[in-house]
Amino acid sequence: MSAGEPCRFGVLTASDRASAGEYEDRSGPAIEAFLDEALTSPWEISRRLVKDEQKSIEQALIELSDEGCSLIITTGGTGPAPRDVTPEATEAVCERMLPGFGEQMRAISLKHVPTAVLSRQTAGIRGSTLILNLPGSPRSIREILDEIFAAVPYCIDLIGGPYITTDPTVVDAFRPSHARR
Amino acid sequence: MSAGEPCRFGVLTASDRASAGEYEDRSGPAIEAFLDEALTSPWEISRRLVKDEQKSIEQALIELSDEGCSLIITTGGTGPAPRDVTPEATEAVCERMLPGFGEQMRAISLKHVPTAVLSRQTAGIRGSTLILNLPGSPRSIREILDEIFAAVPYCIDLIGGPYITTDPTVVDAFRPSHARR
Amino acid sequence: MSAGEPCRFGVLTASDRASAGEYEDRSGPAIEAFLDEALTSPWEISRRLVKDEQKSIEQALIELSDEGCSLIITTGGTGPAPRDVTPEATEAVCERMLPGFGEQMRAISLKHVPTAVLSRQTAGIRGSTLILNLPGSPRSIREILDEIFAAVPYCIDLIGGPYITTDPTVVDAFRPSHARR
Repeated sequence: MSAGEPCRFGVLTASDRASAGEYEDRSGPAIEAFLDEALTSPWEISRRLVKDEQKSIEQALIELSDEGCSLIITTGGTGPAPRDVTPEATEAVCERMLPGFGEQMRAISLKHVPTAVLSRQTAGIRGSTLILNLPGSPRSIREILDEIFAAVPYCIDLIGGPYITTDPTVVDAFRPSHARR
Repeated sequence: MSAGEPCRFGVLTASDRASAGEYEDRSGPAIEAFLDEALTSPWEISRRLVKDEQKSIEQALIELSDEGCSLIITTGGTGPAPRDVTPEATEAVCERMLPGFGEQMRAISLKHVPTAVLSRQTAGIRGSTLILNLPGSPRSIREILDEIFAAVPYCIDLIGGPYITTDPTVVDAFRPSHARR
Repeated sequence: MSAGEPCRFGVLTASDRASAGEYEDRSGPAIEAFLDEALTSPWEISRRLVKDEQKSIEQALIELSDEGCSLIITTGGTGPAPRDVTPEATEAVCERMLPGFGEQMRAISLKHVPTAVLSRQTAGIRGSTLILNLPGSPRSIREILDEIFAAVPYCIDLIGGPYITTDPTVVDAFRPSHARR
């Protein structure tokens, strides 16, 4: 893709209570605030707010991928409780999984709270879309994105998306020298 | 469940030689000794000692789950040798896996011994039962439980078990503030 | 197996460009150079250079396993790009996976470069053969082998291969005391 083309990001909140209007979604906006701080290349956003049902999450992920999102970040539904089904939905719509993200995200959160071991967060690729599961807590979202986003621009290159750039004071994105423009 | 109700724990030793009486099982008792030190709420225990056969391990896990165990801790059978089949049995009886436990347990043991990378320990949920695979060595069992048990009480809450409490000088269990009683 | 019997190692480079002669394979030789430095017991080597096609990689892995390799180390094809299929080929030919290797190899590389999270490297066992996926970069290959090879001799014992020994100034291989000869 040509440089300068805007990159589309999807933000998907899975929450029974936020989708029913019982409380305000603060997790999706926390992800969007991070993107706003981190990105220096043009970008666009698509948002979804669905209940914790595997089919609803799968359908939203497929729609966001079909809309051309290079990255979809989900929030919520990654724990061990019966209603937590975001990882199952993610795996169902992806062609291949990237186990390193789940490992690193749990390792980051474990520095803050021992129950991070319970998270089933995963990541995978559907066509030209990277899908990343984040937990529901806005503070955890930020702790994780601050570290893992450094690998996202090169991953988007490798799956055929636009060349994105970041503010190095927020995210020091890495590409091998042959991939830099 | 009401506070004060005893929590049932299952301890399952998988070992050809201990189950044949060729030597004494020291791993199951090591787990039980840890529980005795760590728990301050009422608890009960169910024990099993089986050979390293996938079907025997599966059957014991199902029985312990049916008896109402909120947590089953297995010991033995997690290595790469052909007779090591505890992770296969665990995955076969669980509805969902919790990959963070395997990752963290290997990371803990890697601080002590490089061959910890060979362990295939896993964890998962069957109904209202959390199943955790530990290695066979009593010393490794203690190193792992000392760290990971901090996440167990909240996990048991999330899958519908009794509210358990621990001695903070042994295990500093963590629950998010909204889950504390 | 008797002590002193040579151990056979397989080195498999998966690379469209190196297999087409567009550039020289430097990754396979980097693995071989490491083995040459590390091993003090007798050994033999089998080499393969194939393109990034799942069927070609699977066939090479099966041949190397049938030739009696106790360890096959692959290089290349572990990233998220559509042509990267080495982990899929590895999983397809193995009877059981060893998730600890992927976790530890990514953790090692993450100390050097944040995009290590994108690697899908895995490891598994086919019969009496351990298969390990390494990345394509010679520098990363060395960083990883320097750490993880300490667990390889004992793993080869456990799956029925020859007793191998290493130079402790290069690799401080570990075996539990009952497994030492």
